Amino acid sequence: MLCSGGVKYAIPQAKKIYEFFSREDLIVIGLHTVFEYHDAMGEISLKAFLHEYRVNFPVAIDKPSDDINDPIPKTMRKYQTQGTPTLLLFDHNGYLRKHKMGHEHDLVLGAELMTLIMEKNDNEN
Amino acid sequence: MLCSGGVKYAIPQAKKIYEFFSREDLIVIGLHTVFEYHDAMGEISLKAFLHEYRVNFPVAIDKPSDDINDPIPKTMRKYQTQGTPTLLLFDHNGYLRKHKMGHEHDLVLGAELMTLIMEKNDNEN
Amino acid sequence: MLCSGGVKYAIPQAKKIYEFFSREDLIVIGLHTVFEYHDAMGEISLKAFLHEYRVNFPVAIDKPSDDINDPIPKTMRKYQTQGTPTLLLFDHNGYLRKHKMGHEHDLVLGAELMTLIMEKNDNEN
Amino acid sequence: MLCSGGVKYAIPQAKKIYEFFSREDLIVIGLHTVFEYHDAMGEISLKAFLHEYRVNFPVAIDKPSDDINDPIPKTMRKYQTQGTPTLLLFDHNGYLRKHKMGHEHDLVLGAELMTLIMEKNDNEN
Repeated sequence: MLCSGGVKYAIPQAKKIYEFFSREDLIVIGLHTVFEYHDAMGEISLKAFLHEYRVNFPVAIDKPSDDINDPIPKTMRKYQTQGTPTLLLFDHNGYLRKHKMGHEHDLVLGAELMTLIMEKNDNEN
Repeated sequence: MLCSGGVKYAIPQAKKIYEFFSREDLIVIGLHTVFEYHDAMGEISLKAFLHEYRVNFPVAIDKPSDDINDPIPKTMRKYQTQGTPTLLLFDHNGYLRKHKMGHEHDLVLGAELMTLIMEKNDNEN
Repeated sequence: MLCSGGVKYAIPQAKKIYEFFSREDLIVIGLHTVFEYHDAMGEISLKAFLHEYRVNFPVAIDKPSDDINDPIPKTMRKYQTQGTPTLLLFDHNGYLRKHKMGHEHDLVLGAELMTLIMEKNDNEN
Repeated sequence: MLCSGGVKYAIPQAKKIYEFFSREDLIVIGLHTVFEYHDAMGEISLKAFLHEYRVNFPVAIDKPSDDINDPIPKTMRKYQTQGTPTLLLFDHNGYLRKHKMGHEHDLVLGAELMTLIMEKNDNEN
């Protein structure tokens, strides 16, 4: 939300993926990860932001750590993401297949998404 | 802050104006105008936003209306701005010389700014 | 060469495809199709253009029609391309699988290319 | 014509200047400067190029050197331009006021053009 790279590149890219691919083939989930500016990044701000930027895919909110002194939320810690935007691709078995910090070129990402989609289709046939 | 046109066009343009022109010639002031999502747009959110987007010129916060039921803040009402981004150009005598809603092309804006700067210099000589 | 859409979108896209994909997986071939301005679009002009735009994949020159009064060259007529840029995707059996006039989004094209590549790999296994 | 920086930045910028400013205030002239690929850059190629890129302001062709062994044409030699795009601004008295190789930001250029326009208006009054 406050990451200019995320706003400029990652959100438009995620919206395009959500637009171009079928819901049967892949699921797009945003993750709102708050590791600084906690007071500025609450649910009310997020809702306003998602509305204004016309984000139409679901966006989850990363759960804060159980340790009250730890500013890093749970999912962020689990996947060791170091900032935004971060891209995580999971295959249909739930395995993490790609972990990329920063922007991935659309051509590469389109090819990688299709690889996972075709794997799934092969397994089902 | 939550206006994608403002984030994408107006803020980068204002930063460039601030960079290219001398502080003697013109003053750039941002105005944080909250007319919706009041809970998401407070001072803490603004500070985080300005830091992340590296806004280095001063940004004022438009004062809320004295009428508690009026969501439109004072400066916004005074100049009848209808949304963001809005550009207001004042000459060195304080007269409003341009009021534009939406984006102005850099070539046109550069020329208009220089017109006001040269008027000021002419008057001083 | 004289098509601004081709210069702005299609050539950069083709260069990226050539950069991102393996030569084992796909082959990129440009086609210089001259259907107007024949005097301005000869081989000398093409060579200069390819050098200046750093086109590093092979570019073929579409053969003129055997009918001297027909300005449309052979490949252009065969595939009924109506202008530039046109994208033709052939699978590894030589079948035309996509014929698109105008620009295709990188995400979609990346996915389509990967579909054809994985078909080939499936057939070989 | 074969300079990708010129095609991508300088020609669109010159077209905008031609569109935004009055013919009374300034004159836009392109200069076709051939210092390499002479065989690919003749008048026929130029005409096709200008038509395809919808260049609507006048474009002059730099005269070849009188010395047949000198590939640098006359205007290019006179103003010591070293490549394209190069921007030359002349005031209404014909004095060269700016000589810039590479791209100038629209805000800066708009301001500089207006400076010269207002000088002219001041002199006339």
